[in-house]
Amino acid sequence: MSFKPISDIGEFGLIERISSIVAPTRKASSRLIEGIGDDCAVYELSYSTVQVATTDLLLEHVHFDLLTTPLQHLGSKAISVNVSDICAMNARPCYALVSIALPSKASVEFVETIYRGMSETAMLYNTSLAGGDTSASPAGVTLSVMVAGEIEKEKLSYRKGAQPGDLVCVTGTLGGAAAGLRVLTREKDVMLEHLSHGEKYDRDIMSNLEEYNEAIRQQLLPSARLDIIDFFHKHGIIPTSMIDISDGLASDLGHICRLSGVGVHIEESRIPILPQARHIADEFQEDAVNYVLSGGEDYQLLFTLKAEQFSSIASHPDINVIGKITPEDEGLLLTDIYGMNIDMTTVEGYNHFQG
Amino acid sequence: MSFKPISDIGEFGLIERISSIVAPTRKASSRLIEGIGDDCAVYELSYSTVQVATTDLLLEHVHFDLLTTPLQHLGSKAISVNVSDICAMNARPCYALVSIALPSKASVEFVETIYRGMSETAMLYNTSLAGGDTSASPAGVTLSVMVAGEIEKEKLSYRKGAQPGDLVCVTGTLGGAAAGLRVLTREKDVMLEHLSHGEKYDRDIMSNLEEYNEAIRQQLLPSARLDIIDFFHKHGIIPTSMIDISDGLASDLGHICRLSGVGVHIEESRIPILPQARHIADEFQEDAVNYVLSGGEDYQLLFTLKAEQFSSIASHPDINVIGKITPEDEGLLLTDIYGMNIDMTTVEGYNHFQG
Repeated sequence: MSFKPISDIGEFGLIERISSIVAPTRKASSRLIEGIGDDCAVYELSYSTVQVATTDLLLEHVHFDLLTTPLQHLGSKAISVNVSDICAMNARPCYALVSIALPSKASVEFVETIYRGMSETAMLYNTSLAGGDTSASPAGVTLSVMVAGEIEKEKLSYRKGAQPGDLVCVTGTLGGAAAGLRVLTREKDVMLEHLSHGEKYDRDIMSNLEEYNEAIRQQLLPSARLDIIDFFHKHGIIPTSMIDISDGLASDLGHICRLSGVGVHIEESRIPILPQARHIADEFQEDAVNYVLSGGEDYQLLFTLKAEQFSSIASHPDINVIGKITPEDEGLLLTDIYGMNIDMTTVEGYNHFQG
Repeated sequence: MSFKPISDIGEFGLIERISSIVAPTRKASSRLIEGIGDDCAVYELSYSTVQVATTDLLLEHVHFDLLTTPLQHLGSKAISVNVSDICAMNARPCYALVSIALPSKASVEFVETIYRGMSETAMLYNTSLAGGDTSASPAGVTLSVMVAGEIEKEKLSYRKGAQPGDLVCVTGTLGGAAAGLRVLTREKDVMLEHLSHGEKYDRDIMSNLEEYNEAIRQQLLPSARLDIIDFFHKHGIIPTSMIDISDGLASDLGHICRLSGVGVHIEESRIPILPQARHIADEFQEDAVNYVLSGGEDYQLLFTLKAEQFSSIASHPDINVIGKITPEDEGLLLTDIYGMNIDMTTVEGYNHFQG
């Protein structure tokens, strides 16, 4: 018997295998409308209402580094990334369950600070922290957060549903989270270098990061765009498809296109890139567009809209049209600022099990 | 500033601290009926129906040992322990979300086997596996499972609600899971001893465990007692309080008594102990009653019932009355087989953060 390493099939290959194994359980409940494959599972509550539910696992050394992450921000981000998945269904969050595993050296104050971050952020989203689990951990901190939300069935936005001619829109600015991580990683390396020479930890070792503050904030303290969902509901807007940008624009657009059976054409010049991300990219002699396409963790909303609904979003200062949906056979194209067409399927998104 | 180690306040002390930090989020949703403190969070779905939701984190080297745990059983147990919490509210499970973190050496087949165990067990409980998350892990396997269930509001059983005079009942037999773990741990030590002498791994190194099969099965492959919930619903039985036995009878009775503001009087001679657990205890020169009181992981239901409802459970072959609820000032007493009274609050239950 041979054993295939997960890196051979990658994260999405693995998810496909898992989906096929759990598929028979779908029929256990006639009220499960959508299982694996979207930002949330969708469960029917009544004739007109559904529950949407999502969960994210955050592991130290994989998803966060305590050397560069304030504990309160860690707690906040754990809530926001889940609420962002709820928003991606055009729904509002209701309650959360939170589990934490702690190494024996963790202090009571350490745990309290994380939960204060979660609690304050949950309040911003009108979300109740309703329960969870605590456990010892053999090494490192693990957080598992689940959020349940609700929405009228007819207002749901899936990843599928985009049609040729639809406008492709994003909220906010992109690239900041990846750029912020770049700076934080450099600072950590500098700090470790100092410490390895026997110098005591000293906050003044750290450079002044003021000029990177916005990018770092987007990395450490992202917000779920519940304000956009409020705007949609207020103006009767139902995106034809929606996803939150967690893996990078290229990968997340890929999900929408694959599930909708469409292509897409994006213009680089229309992508709202955080100015600090450009500045940081210059410093690292990199291209800020790559932070946007494959950096991920921006937690902005990427959605499509019937072209005739353009006027309903035109006045919103934080929504930008970056391209349009095309027939499937036209592929996933990005026209760069020089007019060259780039195939976005060749751009790598974040993959937990890269070979 | 001084930092207090978690072991100073223990798992329940930590949960109290967390509860007070997240308390302000309670008012974020007027529909959250019960937060931290019971087997499940309780969320109002409609005038007559509630959702109950629970989550458990399972970490390698803390909750399970892959040297003694078949992967399929691991997947199965991860589902059963959560469904058991749903049953403890007198509810039925609907859907589950499952997250897994995997070390880089894990193979595709490894993951598939765990999910097959989860999937087959979820089917037994009519529960849909609806989504989740996959991630890399720096070390060890981590599983996080969340299960949502449903019940009419008036049929809910909380931990609170027991009243003096109520009968105290348990399902099934107890002590098996702790006894099984005792045997498995011994076998693991023997195996490691052989391996440390350079012997190759050989299944025949292991003793024949046939005589311990039932105890080992209760440790590795516990069942949630959804059959008992079916029985309750069919006969209109609503326990005045209920909990599943995960920390040990003493600790779990303690939860019911503390939250209900009552005492309890249990008779050791009435506790249904798994015969193999007695046999294993004899072999280790231990007392099987201790497996029951502080071993935990039996995942049987512990509940209280109005005395006049005795006839409704009397004929059930798998429900035993082990004592009765008393006024709070009478404490938590166990009368042993010699007629001595033991204060159960002095018995330690499972505590993740023991000093």
